[in-house]
Amino acid sequence: MTNYTFGSDNHSPVHPRILQYMEKINTGAMKAYGYDPVTAEAEKLFKTIFGAETEVYFVFNGTGANILSIRSFLQPFQAVICADTAHINCDECGAPEFINGVKLLYLPNTNGKLTIDQIASKLHGRGDEHHNDPAIVSITQSTELGTLYTLKELKEITEFCHSKKLKVHMDGARISNAAVALGCTFKEMTTDVGIDVLSFGGTKNGLLMAEAVVFLNSGAPVWIKHLRKQNMQLMSKMRYIAGQFLPYLQEELWKENAQKANSMAQYLRKELIEAGVEITRNTDVNAVFCRIPKQIKAKILPLYFFYTWDEDADEVRLMCSFTTQEQEIDDFVTLIRETTT
Amino acid sequence: MTNYTFGSDNHSPVHPRILQYMEKINTGAMKAYGYDPVTAEAEKLFKTIFGAETEVYFVFNGTGANILSIRSFLQPFQAVICADTAHINCDECGAPEFINGVKLLYLPNTNGKLTIDQIASKLHGRGDEHHNDPAIVSITQSTELGTLYTLKELKEITEFCHSKKLKVHMDGARISNAAVALGCTFKEMTTDVGIDVLSFGGTKNGLLMAEAVVFLNSGAPVWIKHLRKQNMQLMSKMRYIAGQFLPYLQEELWKENAQKANSMAQYLRKELIEAGVEITRNTDVNAVFCRIPKQIKAKILPLYFFYTWDEDADEVRLMCSFTTQEQEIDDFVTLIRETTT
Amino acid sequence: MTNYTFGSDNHSPVHPRILQYMEKINTGAMKAYGYDPVTAEAEKLFKTIFGAETEVYFVFNGTGANILSIRSFLQPFQAVICADTAHINCDECGAPEFINGVKLLYLPNTNGKLTIDQIASKLHGRGDEHHNDPAIVSITQSTELGTLYTLKELKEITEFCHSKKLKVHMDGARISNAAVALGCTFKEMTTDVGIDVLSFGGTKNGLLMAEAVVFLNSGAPVWIKHLRKQNMQLMSKMRYIAGQFLPYLQEELWKENAQKANSMAQYLRKELIEAGVEITRNTDVNAVFCRIPKQIKAKILPLYFFYTWDEDADEVRLMCSFTTQEQEIDDFVTLIRETTT
Amino acid sequence: MTNYTFGSDNHSPVHPRILQYMEKINTGAMKAYGYDPVTAEAEKLFKTIFGAETEVYFVFNGTGANILSIRSFLQPFQAVICADTAHINCDECGAPEFINGVKLLYLPNTNGKLTIDQIASKLHGRGDEHHNDPAIVSITQSTELGTLYTLKELKEITEFCHSKKLKVHMDGARISNAAVALGCTFKEMTTDVGIDVLSFGGTKNGLLMAEAVVFLNSGAPVWIKHLRKQNMQLMSKMRYIAGQFLPYLQEELWKENAQKANSMAQYLRKELIEAGVEITRNTDVNAVFCRIPKQIKAKILPLYFFYTWDEDADEVRLMCSFTTQEQEIDDFVTLIRETTT
Repeated sequence: MTNYTFGSDNHSPVHPRILQYMEKINTGAMKAYGYDPVTAEAEKLFKTIFGAETEVYFVFNGTGANILSIRSFLQPFQAVICADTAHINCDECGAPEFINGVKLLYLPNTNGKLTIDQIASKLHGRGDEHHNDPAIVSITQSTELGTLYTLKELKEITEFCHSKKLKVHMDGARISNAAVALGCTFKEMTTDVGIDVLSFGGTKNGLLMAEAVVFLNSGAPVWIKHLRKQNMQLMSKMRYIAGQFLPYLQEELWKENAQKANSMAQYLRKELIEAGVEITRNTDVNAVFCRIPKQIKAKILPLYFFYTWDEDADEVRLMCSFTTQEQEIDDFVTLIRETTT
Repeated sequence: MTNYTFGSDNHSPVHPRILQYMEKINTGAMKAYGYDPVTAEAEKLFKTIFGAETEVYFVFNGTGANILSIRSFLQPFQAVICADTAHINCDECGAPEFINGVKLLYLPNTNGKLTIDQIASKLHGRGDEHHNDPAIVSITQSTELGTLYTLKELKEITEFCHSKKLKVHMDGARISNAAVALGCTFKEMTTDVGIDVLSFGGTKNGLLMAEAVVFLNSGAPVWIKHLRKQNMQLMSKMRYIAGQFLPYLQEELWKENAQKANSMAQYLRKELIEAGVEITRNTDVNAVFCRIPKQIKAKILPLYFFYTWDEDADEVRLMCSFTTQEQEIDDFVTLIRETTT
Repeated sequence: MTNYTFGSDNHSPVHPRILQYMEKINTGAMKAYGYDPVTAEAEKLFKTIFGAETEVYFVFNGTGANILSIRSFLQPFQAVICADTAHINCDECGAPEFINGVKLLYLPNTNGKLTIDQIASKLHGRGDEHHNDPAIVSITQSTELGTLYTLKELKEITEFCHSKKLKVHMDGARISNAAVALGCTFKEMTTDVGIDVLSFGGTKNGLLMAEAVVFLNSGAPVWIKHLRKQNMQLMSKMRYIAGQFLPYLQEELWKENAQKANSMAQYLRKELIEAGVEITRNTDVNAVFCRIPKQIKAKILPLYFFYTWDEDADEVRLMCSFTTQEQEIDDFVTLIRETTT
Repeated sequence: MTNYTFGSDNHSPVHPRILQYMEKINTGAMKAYGYDPVTAEAEKLFKTIFGAETEVYFVFNGTGANILSIRSFLQPFQAVICADTAHINCDECGAPEFINGVKLLYLPNTNGKLTIDQIASKLHGRGDEHHNDPAIVSITQSTELGTLYTLKELKEITEFCHSKKLKVHMDGARISNAAVALGCTFKEMTTDVGIDVLSFGGTKNGLLMAEAVVFLNSGAPVWIKHLRKQNMQLMSKMRYIAGQFLPYLQEELWKENAQKANSMAQYLRKELIEAGVEITRNTDVNAVFCRIPKQIKAKILPLYFFYTWDEDADEVRLMCSFTTQEQEIDDFVTLIRETTT
C-alpha cells in the first residue's frame, strides 16, 4: 500500500478537534451565507489577531482566495507581478487570467522569492495604454520552494511597492508554517509589515477546507461580497467553514500543527543527509527538496508517493504535515538507503 | 431569539450521520484532488445510481455546479435558455455571464417552469453571427417556485431540445425533494428522460457542503477537469466532499431527509390554510408560498425569519427542511393567528 | 440584379466628401494612435458641439462603441437595464456579456422604448450580493423600431436614473436621424438632457467607418484609453477615422444626409400606404415597418433585399439612407402593386 | 516641426492607389458585413495567393487579428507559447488574457525569435488539470526586433509543433517586409511551411486600416464568424476594408511598398554606421536599432520622433516605411553628426 504522507501537506486528514467543533455548532437553523453568529465570532477573532481594521471573507480554497484577493485590487487591464514559481502562475490553470482577465508579469525567482530590483524592472512605461499597468505584487510566504521572506524583507518590499502605488498580496497557503519558523505572530508578518491583502490558508495545516481573504491595511473594496459571490466562492452553510477557524486560532492549533510539520521536515532533512541524499534547498518550513536519481525513485515511488520538482535535475519535493510520524520518516529513509546500496 | 427554520433549507444544519462519516474517513494521508479511494467509491456509486455511462465531478456549491455544467456544453458566443426565475438568472450575481461569457435568454416562467413553445420561440435565426446561438436549455427540478416538472414533461422537453441540437441541463439543487414527491428514482428523473447534465445538490438536504456535476447521456467534455480547476471548484481534500455522498446515497438519507422536509411543508400548508392564510402556489415539495400582509409580517419577522418573494403582492416564501419540527410550525401558525386577529 | 437600398442604412456607400477629405489629410507621417493633429482637431470639435466638458474616444464600429461605453461605467457584477429590442441585447452576439461580463436586464419595449416604471421595476433588492446591481440604463435614440424619445422623455429618464445612482448610456447609431427629426442639436438631445455617455454613430449616415464614445456629463474613467486598447478598438492610423468627423460635423453633412434619409422614409411610407400596404409602426426617422405577406415577399425579395422583422406577423423593415432615390422607391412600390394584384 | 517618419511604419499615410480604389468601389448600396461582391473577390484572391484551402476573415487592426487567431484554436484553460518581445505579450494591453482568458507562456527571445528547444521546455506535464496546456505557438515574422525566421526555421518549428499537437500562429504585421527580404511568396512563407493561422497585416505597409485572419492548413473553426462578431471585429461596410487588398495584392503594391521601406532601412543603417553610430541588431527588414546616448537623444527627439527601445542601454528603434525619403534620412543623420560632435 502506498504511503501518501510526503506527497503534500494537503494529503493530510483533518485535525480531530476541528471535526469535534463542527459537531458542536451543528445545532439548529442559522441564517446562511455568513449572516450567522459563528461566522460573526470568527470575523471578530480575525480582527483580534490581525488588527482592528481587518476584514475577513471566507472562501473555499486557496485558488479562490488568491483570485478574489487579486480581483479586489485590480482591473483587467492591469498586471500582477509575481515569481515564476508562484502558485497563481503555475498551479491555478490560468484562473488569474481567465477570471480576473489580468496579465501576470512573472519573474525568475530568487530562492522562491522576489527582490525589489526585480519588481522595479517591471515598472517602466507605466500609464502607456498599450501595456498592462502593474497594480499588485504577489508574494508567497512561505514560498513554493519552502523558503521564507524575513520580516525585514517583507517590510522593504511593501514600502517599495506602496511608494510605487502597488498593493501587496501575500499568498499564505502555508502562513502558519512561516509564522512558526520566524517565531512571530500572524500580525507581525502581515499587517505590521504592510501587507494589503492576505490569502490565509488553513487546509494544508489541519482544517477541512477553510481559507480566507484577509484585508489588512487598505480595507476591502465596497463590492467585495459581490465579487466573492460572482467568483462562486460564497458558501451557504458558512458556519462550518468560518467556524473551523475558532478552535484553530483560539486554541493555537495552527501553531501546534505547523510546529509538528516543520520539525518533521527538519528530522527528515537530517535523516536524508545522514543517508547520503543531496539536499537541494533550504528547509525553512515543512518542505524538503532533495536529489533522488531516477532509478531509485522508480523503486520508491510505488511505496511512497511524492512529487518530482525538476525532472532533469532529479529533484523531488517531500512535504511534511502535522500528521507525519517519525516512524514514517525512518521507514522511508531506510528504504532509500536499501535502494541506493 | 429569531427562529431561522423557514428562511431556507440551507439554513438547516448537517445531518449527524454525515459528520459521523467524515470522522470515519478522517484517517491518514490520502492523495488530494480526487485521486483518493473515498472519491473513487463515490464516483462508482453515482454510476450505480444514474447509469453506467455517468461521470461525476464534485464541486463546492450550487453556483459552482451550474456554472461548470453550462461551461461544459457551450461556448461564450452561445446562449442558455432558462426561466426568468432560474437560480442561474436571479441568484448567482451574474456568474453565468461573467465566468461563461454567455447570454441568458430568460423567459417568463409558467408556474416556475419552461414550456416547449417558449423554448421554440427562441430558436429563430440560428446560425446568424449577430446572435448568440442557443445551445443549452436549463430547467430547475424542483423549481424555484416549489413546483415540479412531471416525468412526461421532462421527456418531452429533452426530446424537443435534442431534435434542435440543444443540450438539457437540470439544476437539481432540490432534486431529492423532487424525487420523493414524484415517487421516482434519480435515474428515472434524469438519465431516463434524457437530461444531459445535472447539478446534483446535497447541501440543502442535510449535507455539509457537497454538490456535484453529473454527466448522464452525453458524456463529459475531454477537458472537464481543467474547466473545474480553472473555475476554482477543485478541492484538495476531496474525500470530505465526495465522501458525504456515500451515506447520503447508500443509506437513503437523501430520501429520509427530503420526505421529512416535504411532509413538513404539507403540514405547514394545511395549518396555514386553517389559520386563514392565503396560499399562493402549489406545494409540490418543501416550499410554501403564501400571502402575509405587511403589517403582520412586520410583527412576525423579528421572531421568525423568512424571505419575501413579491413585495407588492405581500407574497412570502416559507421553506421547510429535514430538521423542521411540527412544534415550530405550530408555534409559527399560532403567532400568525394571534397577530392577525 | 438585387437592389440593396432598403436592407439597411449601412448598405449605403460613403459620402464622396468624406473620401475627398481623407485624401486631403493623406500627406506625410503623423504620430499614430490618436496623437496626431487631425484627431486633436476632431476632439476639439466634439467639445464645441457637445459642451466643454466633453471627451471623445474614437472606435471602429457601433458594437465597439457600446461595449466601451458600458465598460466605462460598470463592473462585471453589475447590470445594464435595456429594452429587449436594444442592439446590445439582440445584435452584438453577446459581446456585452462576453467582454464586459455583465448581465443585461432586458425589458419588453414600449414602442422601442423604455419607460421609467419599467426601469424602476428592476431596482428591487439593490446591494444584495446574489444579484447584479443595475448601474447603467441604455437607451437607443432613434430606437431599433424607428421611433424616438422626446427631449422631455429623455430628461425625465436621466433625472430618474441619476436619482437612483444609475448612469444613462445612449446608443446613438442613428443619432443624426433623431436630431433631424426632433429639430434639435446633438447637445440638446444628449448633454443638455443629462446623458452620461453616448455611442455616436457615423457609419450608417455616410461615413466610411467611424464611431465614437462621447462622455458628456460624468467625465470618462481615468483608464479609458487602456479600456479602449484592451477592447481592441484602438486604431493606429486614427487620423482617417477621427478626420471623417471634421467635414461631417463642420459642414453639417450629418444633417444633410439624415434629412435625406428621413424624408425618403416619409415618401416610402406615403407610397406604401397609397399602394394599400399596412404600415405597422410610426415612421419617426428613416425606417418603415410594414406588413408584406409571405407569398408577395417571396417574389420581391430576390429583386429588393430587406430584413424580415417578425416572421409570424409578416412584418418587414425597410430602411432608407442618404443615397436612397425616389426612383428606387417608385420602382419598389410599383413592384409591390404588381405583385399584390 | 517634428518629423514623425522614423517613429513607426504605422505613422505613414495611405498609399494613394488605395484611396483611389476606395473611390472606385464607392457606388451604390451593397449588402453589409461581408456579403458583398468586393469582399467575395478579395476572399477569392486570398485563395489564389495562399492556396485553395485558405479562408480569410477581415478585421480592423493587428490586435484584433491576433486575438481572433488565438481564440480560433484554443480554449481559455490552454496556453500560448510566445517570445517575451511578442506584440501579443507586450503591446496589446493584455487583450489575449482579457478576451481569450488564456495564459501566455512567454520565453526570453533569441534575436526576436523562439527556438524549438525553448518551445519544448514548456511542454512538461501536459494534461495536468492544474496547468494551462499549451495549444498554440505564436511567432512574429518579421519579428518585433526587425529580424527574420528563415523558411527552414519556420518549417522546423511547425513540424515540431504539429508533432506535439500545437498549432502555429504567425503574427504577420510586417509580413510583406519579410517576404521581400526573403525573396519568397506569401504562400512559401506561410502555407507551404505549415503555418496554421496568420495575422496578415496591411496597415503598416500602405493600407488605411486593413488586417486579416487567414486560415491556411487547418481550416477555420465552424463558429469563426460568431467569434469575430463577439470580438467586435465585424465591420458593416466591409467592402472598404476587404477591397483595399485587391489593388494591394493584385498590383503587387505590397511588394513595391515593402521594398521601399526595407531599402530605406538599409540606407539608414549604412549612413548611421558612417556617422559612427553603433548599430545594435541585424537590419533584416525595415527597422534599424542603434545606440543614441541620452544627451544626444534629448536634442534630436524634438525634431525627429522615434521610440526608445531600451532606456538603460540607450537603444532606440528607427522604423522606415514606404514613404520614407532619402532626404529625410540624410537630414536626420546630418543632425546626429552635428549633435554628436
